[in-house]
Amino acid sequence: MAVDIKVLQSILEVNDHAAAENRERLAAGRVTALNLISAPGAGKTSLLERVIPTLNGATQVEGAAQPEHRIRSAVLEGDIATTRDAERILRLDIPVVQLLTGGGCHLEATQISKGLDELPLGEVDLVFIENVGNIACPAEFDLGEAAKIGILSVTEGSDKPAKYPLLFHEVTALVLNKMDLLPHTDFDLDVFERDFRGLNAAAPVFHISCRTGEGVAAFTGWLRERVRETQGAEAV
Amino acid sequence: MAVDIKVLQSILEVNDHAAAENRERLAAGRVTALNLISAPGAGKTSLLERVIPTLNGATQVEGAAQPEHRIRSAVLEGDIATTRDAERILRLDIPVVQLLTGGGCHLEATQISKGLDELPLGEVDLVFIENVGNIACPAEFDLGEAAKIGILSVTEGSDKPAKYPLLFHEVTALVLNKMDLLPHTDFDLDVFERDFRGLNAAAPVFHISCRTGEGVAAFTGWLRERVRETQGAEAV
Repeated sequence: MAVDIKVLQSILEVNDHAAAENRERLAAGRVTALNLISAPGAGKTSLLERVIPTLNGATQVEGAAQPEHRIRSAVLEGDIATTRDAERILRLDIPVVQLLTGGGCHLEATQISKGLDELPLGEVDLVFIENVGNIACPAEFDLGEAAKIGILSVTEGSDKPAKYPLLFHEVTALVLNKMDLLPHTDFDLDVFERDFRGLNAAAPVFHISCRTGEGVAAFTGWLRERVRETQGAEAV
Repeated sequence: MAVDIKVLQSILEVNDHAAAENRERLAAGRVTALNLISAPGAGKTSLLERVIPTLNGATQVEGAAQPEHRIRSAVLEGDIATTRDAERILRLDIPVVQLLTGGGCHLEATQISKGLDELPLGEVDLVFIENVGNIACPAEFDLGEAAKIGILSVTEGSDKPAKYPLLFHEVTALVLNKMDLLPHTDFDLDVFERDFRGLNAAAPVFHISCRTGEGVAAFTGWLRERVRETQGAEAV
């Protein structure tokens, strides 16, 4: 929603203050928080359903020589309405807090702060924040996360980075999901790569299909690295 | 973006005033304006590429006994960044005005007013307003349109009406796009129908594939009806 510059600054100041507090609190607890942002239906919840059991040790990492250190996840589930995604996450038997925005088009840091209050942070290594399905507004708000992760599904089209540049500029990693549907779409990997690299030189891109499991292991490995960074090399 | 209630009321009042002016101006010119709202990549531009040449008489309506009255379209093209969609529409050889929001997550009525200034309204029957790709914020703003049309692609999932209720409640018609991909998804038509009808008893649902052309004729017929309503039964 467009607001005048003065009001916008005030809103962002309140948000940034709460985000800084969240970041401090997470660092003190050596908890990694990742902010997942995508359009509606790009596969945020499906991605969590894939990676969380693996990180938790409930499923073996594909190709891994030996079991990896167990990473305990929790989820802050942002939605405008319904608790459907939180119910899906609850089936993974991990802590989940539903954050309902009541019409709001993105999560803000003050909501994350309240969500963290309800999590058993002492027993958690990794908090996934599943933002509202929207690639415009959520990218504007720092939640105190360690990194933003973008999820784009190939059915949305290869022109999306150029058309929604802020998100693609801000992400630390990008998941390109629904790769199993690639042959049925006109998604152009070269156009996507060129446009995305024009906005973001560093972020790795993970080609994934949450449906088939393709590419999930590489992304799970990247998540392990993020937790290791937070906790120190010895801990994980 | 969440703002306090007072600021929000003021923004909506300014918007509603401009929307009322747009509506009056369009009615005086017997021009039908339709506000197209969907998530990024659901197929708004592809839908326009399908229906506009048919309405314009450049292609024959599938199954039609005789050529229909020509309907002259124009497009107000809303985007956060890039003129890619406007360039696609320009190839249809009709008037198009690019409205760049510069980061803004939806169109507002004041932008539509400026866009209408740039259109040759005396030579136009139908104005398509292609909103920013977002199913949260755009639904909150009356632009002065005759109707909101929602576009949902089956790749986004059947849970979207329940999760983004305002849009699905507000639409006068709903296009369910990418039906060619239905067999490759877990989209549940029954769940979709049940949830959508819980929010909206009246709006027709058009099952369409912009890729194959399936279902486009029925939707084009519905668009003709809307123009006929505005212009009076004799005119079209």
